[in-house]
Amino acid sequence: MAHVVSVSKGTTRQDDAAEASHQPSRPKAAAPLRLSVLGATGSIGASTLDLVAHHPDRFEVVALTAQCNARRLAELAVAHGAKLAVVGDAAHYAELKALLAGTGTRVAAGPEAIEAAAREPADCVMAAIVGAAGLKPTFAAAEQGSRIALANKECLVSAGDIFISHVGRSGAELMPVDSEHSAAFQAIGRTNARSIEKIVLTASGGPFRTFDKARLARVTPEEALRHPNWSMGAKVTIDSATLMNKGLELIEAFHLFPVGAHQLEAVVHPQSVVHCLVMLEDGSVMAQLSHPDMRTPIALALAWPERLQTPVARLDLVALKNLSFEPPDLDRFPALGLAIDALGRGGAAPSVLNAANEVAVTAFLERKIGFLDIAPTVGACLEKAEGEGLISGVETLDDVIAVDAEARRMARMLLPG
Amino acid sequence: MAHVVSVSKGTTRQDDAAEASHQPSRPKAAAPLRLSVLGATGSIGASTLDLVAHHPDRFEVVALTAQCNARRLAELAVAHGAKLAVVGDAAHYAELKALLAGTGTRVAAGPEAIEAAAREPADCVMAAIVGAAGLKPTFAAAEQGSRIALANKECLVSAGDIFISHVGRSGAELMPVDSEHSAAFQAIGRTNARSIEKIVLTASGGPFRTFDKARLARVTPEEALRHPNWSMGAKVTIDSATLMNKGLELIEAFHLFPVGAHQLEAVVHPQSVVHCLVMLEDGSVMAQLSHPDMRTPIALALAWPERLQTPVARLDLVALKNLSFEPPDLDRFPALGLAIDALGRGGAAPSVLNAANEVAVTAFLERKIGFLDIAPTVGACLEKAEGEGLISGVETLDDVIAVDAEARRMARMLLPG
Repeated sequence: MAHVVSVSKGTTRQDDAAEASHQPSRPKAAAPLRLSVLGATGSIGASTLDLVAHHPDRFEVVALTAQCNARRLAELAVAHGAKLAVVGDAAHYAELKALLAGTGTRVAAGPEAIEAAAREPADCVMAAIVGAAGLKPTFAAAEQGSRIALANKECLVSAGDIFISHVGRSGAELMPVDSEHSAAFQAIGRTNARSIEKIVLTASGGPFRTFDKARLARVTPEEALRHPNWSMGAKVTIDSATLMNKGLELIEAFHLFPVGAHQLEAVVHPQSVVHCLVMLEDGSVMAQLSHPDMRTPIALALAWPERLQTPVARLDLVALKNLSFEPPDLDRFPALGLAIDALGRGGAAPSVLNAANEVAVTAFLERKIGFLDIAPTVGACLEKAEGEGLISGVETLDDVIAVDAEARRMARMLLPG
Repeated sequence: MAHVVSVSKGTTRQDDAAEASHQPSRPKAAAPLRLSVLGATGSIGASTLDLVAHHPDRFEVVALTAQCNARRLAELAVAHGAKLAVVGDAAHYAELKALLAGTGTRVAAGPEAIEAAAREPADCVMAAIVGAAGLKPTFAAAEQGSRIALANKECLVSAGDIFISHVGRSGAELMPVDSEHSAAFQAIGRTNARSIEKIVLTASGGPFRTFDKARLARVTPEEALRHPNWSMGAKVTIDSATLMNKGLELIEAFHLFPVGAHQLEAVVHPQSVVHCLVMLEDGSVMAQLSHPDMRTPIALALAWPERLQTPVARLDLVALKNLSFEPPDLDRFPALGLAIDALGRGGAAPSVLNAANEVAVTAFLERKIGFLDIAPTVGACLEKAEGEGLISGVETLDDVIAVDAEARRMARMLLPG
């Protein structure tokens, strides 16, 4: 037997000095990690750069990108000494150029420049552009063959098989940034695929977990946006309330981890402390817990297989309320069932689901449809797309983008008025 | 970057066929694991051989030992085709020899024969002899340099530094069998020592968790032996009720894992579902959960880094009662404080603690002292041992055995009558 119990004091350890003192010491400084952040001015970008600011010696910022917010992008570029700053909307080019004049940071604008920024040599690219707009830049980043810290959902939900093949060809490392997938990644560790019986992602259940259907029918956007546990954007917050978010995460998990769809489950866990549980063939269940702070999964994505010290509040077990788990109610929250169904249908079904859901959520936020109309709109769009042959024959990223656009058009047609 | 996200479908996997089908398959059969079980007729031995019976192709049973129960030992030797059966008490030699006549199983008796059985070439030795009697055979097993599945507490509690050095010299692998340490081992995974902030072992709190001192003073052995969660021997059951068991486990964890004593904590978790939580520097907490069935940690100790399919009931998250955590009350359960103190004193203090506790628990079971007298007896023995210079200068296994005997004598002297 060649392997050793590496955690034991008595056998192999990484650090002999630490072994003697029982006080593990830091290793000598490695070269800083060259990091680019696509979507630097968003929530994930901000958390990523907060960690960078806590460990200035550990990172070298290569490229930062934003869609519109040139002022914030310029501030971040200056604060972190970025080599390149790119704004997606070319209308903000002049502003960004003026703000960064004389700083030594190169400046560019436009969608192609964002993709070029993604290809700028780096050890890790944080792919945190939200929505379908993140597809091309994340694919571009993956071409480097270095690490992709993946926060964009669409690469896996809409383009899963294509993206995974693309990553496989380049040899890039994919590190999940979503807290549930980061938890699954940690809980799986080096466990062999064949020993995994089930991966269970937890859902907070959202603000309407206990509402009956009559009450759900009257839910307002304002109520939905008061999510109890996580601070997120409006779209994700509504997706949490419908459980569509968990459905999309199951689809992502299918592509990230070596399990079949039947081995993936969602469970409602109102305290949002346990993020994922992985059930193994010997009866062991490995779980990851943490406060709902994205800096923890981001730190892992940046530092793995090391860890990065974070300023995140430490979990106080005694202060926790009782931890509990409930089955999700697919009758009151049918969006989760639609997502599971789309995963089973395969092809472009998850892409249609995601596109239709975005249209439906926007319509809900604009008070064009009710909360309980979101899932039926998505379901109707899936049926229509399947009927029109839209969900098969998707083979390239351009196909995915075309399906996404077509599904949005279909979904809008299904809306009232 | 050389490492890859090994759990991803998109990157390296162990099994290409499995990748194509999404249905991981078993690898081709490896050579069976040559396994010896020291203490085969005890509870851990029985669970170990139950797993062997479930996977007859995975194991080849080398040696089985027992102290007195020749009949059961012979049954097990026949059932598993053991090459060698050894009974510790030579008075049972003739019986064992007769029972195994003509089976092809070699037979021996006496303490030296038990040690010889431990040295019989094997890939893994389950060291499950309870108490100080397990010391020499486990040390002997470690000389092989193969795997020790360690269920004996005394090797780490009474002889920790000496045992760990011994294991280090032979290059043996140490796999913990206690559920809490198995959980810690899994939760740590390949995490670097310097990233571990805290290891938290859980305690059920025992049957008297909610009793006040007046009620504790009246506790009977019968009440103590009705432990709610685990099915264990009388000694361990009383140790669970006093929390001494958790104290001994903290001492074991100190020797097993690369942390300082100040990084080890115990927390009361009445549901006994989470066995250990490991807190990391990025805010992540890794935890292992399972039903209280020793076959799960035993399976890990045998199969790691693989897993072994077990018939253990799978955890049903939804059926769980709310999971909760409480700080241990060192005022009502001072034994835990004594153990933490003994770990801090070092030297032979944990050895004295353990020996005195065995004497005190026996006295309680024999109704010579009350439940609340157990810890004070241990505390008084520790003071006396320290006063007499017993806790320093312990350098060999023989020293440990001598201290153990002397501490028992001292503890008996401290008992009434």
